[in-house]
Amino acid sequence: MASIFSKIIAGEIPCYKIAENENYLAFLDINPLTKGHTLVIPKTEIDYIFDLPTELYSGLHLFAKEVAVALKKGIACQRVGVCVMGMEVPHAHIHLIPFNQMHEMNFSNPKLKLSSEEMQQIAAEIRMKF
Amino acid sequence: MASIFSKIIAGEIPCYKIAENENYLAFLDINPLTKGHTLVIPKTEIDYIFDLPTELYSGLHLFAKEVAVALKKGIACQRVGVCVMGMEVPHAHIHLIPFNQMHEMNFSNPKLKLSSEEMQQIAAEIRMKF
Repeated sequence: MASIFSKIIAGEIPCYKIAENENYLAFLDINPLTKGHTLVIPKTEIDYIFDLPTELYSGLHLFAKEVAVALKKGIACQRVGVCVMGMEVPHAHIHLIPFNQMHEMNFSNPKLKLSSEEMQQIAAEIRMKF
Repeated sequence: MASIFSKIIAGEIPCYKIAENENYLAFLDINPLTKGHTLVIPKTEIDYIFDLPTELYSGLHLFAKEVAVALKKGIACQRVGVCVMGMEVPHAHIHLIPFNQMHEMNFSNPKLKLSSEEMQQIAAEIRMKF
Protein backbone atom coordinates (compact mmCIF):
# COMPACT_ATOMS: atom_id res chain seq x y z
CA MET A 1 0.00 0.00 0.00
CA ALA A 2 1.27 3.49 -0.83
CA SER A 3 2.48 5.49 2.16
CA ILE A 4 0.64 8.67 3.07
CA PHE A 5 3.65 10.51 1.63
CA SER A 6 3.33 8.71 -1.70
CA LYS A 7 -0.31 9.81 -1.76
CA ILE A 8 0.81 13.39 -1.15
CA ILE A 9 3.34 13.08 -3.98
CA ALA A 10 0.61 11.72 -6.26
CA GLY A 11 -1.64 14.64 -5.34
CA GLU A 12 -4.26 12.35 -3.80
CA ILE A 13 -3.79 14.07 -0.43
CA PRO A 14 -3.21 17.83 -0.34
CA CYS A 15 -0.19 19.45 1.30
CA TYR A 16 1.23 22.87 2.03
CA LYS A 17 4.01 22.64 -0.52
CA ILE A 18 7.35 24.34 0.10
CA ALA A 19 9.45 23.06 -2.80
CA GLU A 20 9.49 20.25 -5.34
CA ASN A 21 11.68 18.92 -8.08
CA GLU A 22 11.87 15.71 -10.07
CA ASN A 23 13.07 13.57 -7.17
CA TYR A 24 12.14 15.35 -3.96
CA LEU A 25 9.29 17.16 -2.22
CA ALA A 26 9.17 19.46 0.81
CA PHE A 27 5.94 20.37 2.58
CA LEU A 28 4.79 21.62 5.97
CA ASP A 29 4.32 19.05 8.73
CA ILE A 30 0.62 19.24 9.62
CA ASN A 31 1.52 18.61 13.28
CA PRO A 32 4.29 21.18 13.62
CA LEU A 33 6.56 21.51 16.62
CA THR A 34 7.33 25.07 15.54
CA LYS A 35 6.15 27.48 12.86
CA GLY A 36 7.63 26.34 9.53
CA HIS A 37 8.32 22.72 10.60
CA THR A 38 8.85 21.03 7.24
CA LEU A 39 9.19 17.48 5.96
CA VAL A 40 11.60 16.71 3.13
CA ILE A 41 11.14 13.41 1.31
CA PRO A 42 12.39 11.50 -1.71
CA LYS A 43 9.64 10.67 -4.19
CA THR A 44 10.83 7.08 -4.18
CA GLU A 45 9.14 5.21 -1.34
CA ILE A 46 11.99 3.78 0.73
CA ASP A 47 11.43 3.34 4.46
CA TYR A 48 14.85 3.76 6.06
CA ILE A 49 16.92 6.80 5.07
CA PHE A 50 20.20 4.88 5.17
CA ASP A 51 18.78 2.39 2.64
CA LEU A 52 18.54 5.12 0.01
CA PRO A 53 20.98 4.62 -2.89
CA THR A 54 23.95 6.96 -2.52
CA GLU A 55 22.97 9.40 -5.25
CA LEU A 56 19.36 9.72 -4.04
CA TYR A 57 20.57 10.06 -0.43
CA SER A 58 23.05 12.81 -1.31
CA GLY A 59 20.50 14.61 -3.43
CA LEU A 60 17.97 14.47 -0.58
CA HIS A 61 20.41 16.21 1.76
CA LEU A 62 21.30 18.84 -0.84
CA PHE A 63 17.61 19.51 -1.44
CA ALA A 64 17.07 19.69 2.35
CA LYS A 65 19.86 22.27 2.55
CA GLU A 66 18.15 24.48 -0.03
CA VAL A 67 14.91 24.19 1.91
CA ALA A 68 16.65 24.92 5.24
CA VAL A 69 18.24 28.08 3.83
CA ALA A 70 14.85 29.32 2.61
CA LEU A 71 13.22 28.35 5.94
CA LYS A 72 15.72 30.41 7.92
CA LYS A 73 15.04 33.41 5.68
CA GLY A 74 11.27 33.00 5.86
CA ILE A 75 10.81 32.15 9.55
CA ALA A 76 12.21 34.12 12.49
CA CYS A 77 14.54 31.57 14.13
CA GLN A 78 18.07 31.16 15.33
CA ARG A 79 18.67 28.09 13.18
CA VAL A 80 17.00 25.15 11.49
CA GLY A 81 17.35 21.80 13.25
CA VAL A 82 17.33 18.41 11.56
CA CYS A 83 15.77 15.20 12.79
CA VAL A 84 15.24 11.81 11.17
CA MET A 85 13.48 9.11 13.15
CA GLY A 86 11.10 7.57 10.70
CA MET A 87 8.94 5.41 12.94
CA GLU A 88 5.75 7.32 12.10
CA VAL A 89 5.54 6.77 8.33
CA PRO A 90 7.48 4.04 6.44
CA HIS A 91 8.82 6.51 3.87
CA ALA A 92 12.13 8.27 4.60
CA HIS A 93 11.62 11.87 5.73
CA ILE A 94 13.80 14.59 7.17
CA HIS A 95 12.23 16.94 9.69
CA LEU A 96 13.50 20.51 9.32
CA ILE A 97 12.54 22.47 12.42
CA PRO A 98 13.14 26.22 12.77
CA PHE A 99 14.00 26.83 16.43
CA ASN A 100 15.48 29.24 18.92
CA GLN A 101 16.02 26.94 21.90
CA MET A 102 16.89 23.25 22.03
CA HIS A 103 13.77 22.25 23.94
CA GLU A 104 11.65 23.28 20.94
CA MET A 105 12.99 20.24 19.07
CA ASN A 106 11.44 17.83 21.58
CA PHE A 107 8.89 15.62 19.81
CA SER A 108 7.07 15.09 23.12
CA ASN A 109 6.06 18.75 23.09
CA PRO A 110 2.44 19.61 22.27
CA LYS A 111 2.07 20.38 18.57
CA LEU A 112 1.06 23.83 17.36
CA LYS A 113 -2.55 24.33 16.37
CA LEU A 114 -2.55 26.39 13.20
CA SER A 115 -5.46 27.10 10.90
CA SER A 116 -5.36 26.19 7.21
CA GLU A 117 -5.04 29.92 6.45
CA GLU A 118 -2.03 30.22 8.76
CA MET A 119 -0.38 27.15 7.19
CA GLN A 120 -0.96 28.55 3.69
CA GLN A 121 0.51 31.89 4.77
CA ILE A 122 3.60 30.22 6.30
CA ALA A 123 4.18 28.10 3.19
CA ALA A 124 3.83 31.17 0.96
CA GLU A 125 6.31 33.15 3.07
CA ILE A 126 8.89 30.36 2.83
CA ARG A 127 8.35 29.77 -0.91
CA MET A 128 9.16 33.42 -1.56
CA LYS A 129 12.64 32.90 -0.07
CA PHE A 130 13.88 30.44 -2.66
CA MET B 1 39.22 29.75 20.60
CA ALA B 2 39.17 26.18 19.29
CA SER B 3 35.92 24.31 19.94
CA ILE B 4 36.04 21.23 22.16
CA PHE B 5 35.59 19.23 18.95
CA SER B 6 38.62 20.86 17.34
CA LYS B 7 40.59 19.87 20.46
CA ILE B 8 39.36 16.31 20.02
CA ILE B 9 40.42 16.39 16.35
CA ALA B 10 43.84 17.72 17.38
CA GLY B 11 44.18 14.90 19.92
CA GLU B 12 44.34 17.35 22.85
CA ILE B 13 41.20 15.80 24.32
CA PRO B 14 40.72 12.01 24.06
CA CYS B 15 37.66 10.40 22.47
CA TYR B 16 36.20 6.98 21.84
CA LYS B 17 36.87 7.01 18.12
CA ILE B 18 34.52 5.24 15.71
CA ALA B 19 35.88 6.31 12.32
CA GLU B 20 38.07 8.97 10.79
CA ASN B 21 39.27 10.12 7.41
CA GLU B 22 40.94 13.22 6.03
CA ASN B 23 37.91 15.46 6.45
CA TYR B 24 35.64 13.88 9.05
CA LEU B 25 35.63 12.23 12.48
CA ALA B 26 33.08 10.09 14.31
CA PHE B 27 33.29 9.37 18.04
CA LEU B 28 31.00 8.31 20.85
CA ASP B 29 28.98 11.03 22.60
CA ILE B 30 30.20 11.00 26.20
CA ASN B 31 26.65 11.80 27.36
CA PRO B 32 24.82 9.16 25.32
CA LEU B 33 21.06 8.93 25.01
CA THR B 34 21.46 5.31 23.98
CA LYS B 35 24.27 2.80 23.67
CA GLY B 36 26.33 3.71 20.59
CA HIS B 37 25.17 7.35 20.39
CA THR B 38 27.78 8.85 18.08
CA LEU B 39 28.77 12.34 16.91
CA VAL B 40 29.89 12.89 13.34
CA ILE B 41 31.77 16.11 12.59
CA PRO B 42 33.72 17.82 9.83
CA LYS B 43 37.32 18.60 10.79
CA THR B 44 36.77 22.16 9.60
CA GLU B 45 35.31 24.22 12.44
CA ILE B 46 32.08 25.67 11.08
CA ASP B 47 29.25 26.31 13.52
CA TYR B 48 26.05 25.88 11.49
CA ILE B 49 25.69 22.74 9.38
CA PHE B 50 23.91 24.58 6.56
CA ASP B 51 26.87 26.97 6.28
CA LEU B 52 29.17 24.11 5.22
CA PRO B 53 30.32 24.39 1.59
CA THR B 54 28.36 22.00 -0.60
CA GLU B 55 31.12 19.44 -1.09
CA LEU B 56 32.01 19.30 2.61
CA TYR B 57 28.31 19.09 3.52
CA SER B 58 27.65 16.24 1.09
CA GLY B 59 30.76 14.40 2.23
CA LEU B 60 29.71 14.75 5.86
CA HIS B 61 26.37 13.08 5.15
CA LEU B 62 28.00 10.30 3.14
CA PHE B 63 30.47 9.70 5.97
CA ALA B 64 27.55 9.72 8.46
CA LYS B 65 25.81 7.09 6.33
CA GLU B 66 28.85 4.78 6.51
CA VAL B 67 28.94 5.26 10.27
CA ALA B 68 25.19 4.66 10.63
CA VAL B 69 25.44 1.39 8.69
CA ALA B 70 28.24 0.19 10.97
CA LEU B 71 26.33 1.35 14.06
CA LYS B 72 23.26 -0.65 13.09
CA LYS B 73 25.42 -3.75 12.64
CA GLY B 74 27.28 -3.23 15.90
CA ILE B 75 24.45 -2.18 18.22
CA ALA B 76 21.17 -4.04 18.70
CA CYS B 77 18.61 -1.47 17.47
CA GLN B 78 15.72 -1.09 15.10
CA ARG B 79 17.31 1.85 13.30
CA VAL B 80 19.72 4.74 13.66
CA GLY B 81 18.13 8.16 14.13
CA VAL B 82 19.67 11.46 13.09
CA CYS B 83 19.56 14.77 14.89
CA VAL B 84 21.30 18.08 14.29
CA MET B 85 20.63 20.92 16.69
CA GLY B 86 24.02 22.42 17.32
CA MET B 87 23.33 24.77 20.21
CA GLU B 88 25.69 22.91 22.56
CA VAL B 89 29.02 23.26 20.71
CA PRO B 90 29.66 25.82 17.93
CA HIS B 91 31.05 23.18 15.56
CA ALA B 92 28.61 21.38 13.26
CA HIS B 93 27.82 17.85 14.46
CA ILE B 94 25.37 15.14 13.53
CA HIS B 95 24.02 12.97 16.32
CA LEU B 96 23.55 9.35 15.23
CA ILE B 97 21.39 7.59 17.79
CA PRO B 98 20.65 3.84 17.66
CA PHE B 99 17.10 3.41 18.91
CA ASN B 100 14.15 1.08 19.11
CA GLN B 101 11.40 3.51 20.12
CA MET B 102 10.91 7.17 19.28
CA HIS B 103 11.00 8.37 22.87
CA GLU B 104 14.64 7.24 23.11
CA MET B 105 15.59 10.14 20.82
CA ASN B 106 14.36 12.72 23.34
CA PHE B 107 17.29 14.90 24.45
CA SER B 108 15.48 15.65 27.72
CA ASN B 109 15.93 12.02 28.76
CA PRO B 110 18.53 11.24 31.42
CA LYS B 111 21.83 10.28 29.79
CA LEU B 112 23.31 6.80 30.17
CA LYS B 113 26.05 6.36 32.75
CA LEU B 114 28.68 4.13 31.16
CA SER B 115 32.16 3.39 32.42
CA SER B 116 35.24 4.09 30.34
CA GLU B 117 35.61 0.34 29.84
CA GLU B 118 32.04 0.08 28.55
CA MET B 119 32.58 3.01 26.17
CA GLN B 120 35.80 1.44 24.85
CA GLN B 121 34.00 -1.86 24.37
CA ILE B 122 31.12 -0.21 22.48
CA ALA B 123 33.50 1.73 20.23
CA ALA B 124 35.48 -1.43 19.49
CA GLU B 125 32.30 -3.37 18.62
CA ILE B 126 31.22 -0.67 16.18
CA ARG B 127 34.67 -0.26 14.60
CA MET B 128 34.69 -3.97 13.75
CA LYS B 129 31.58 -3.47 11.58
CA PHE B 130 33.20 -1.18 9.02
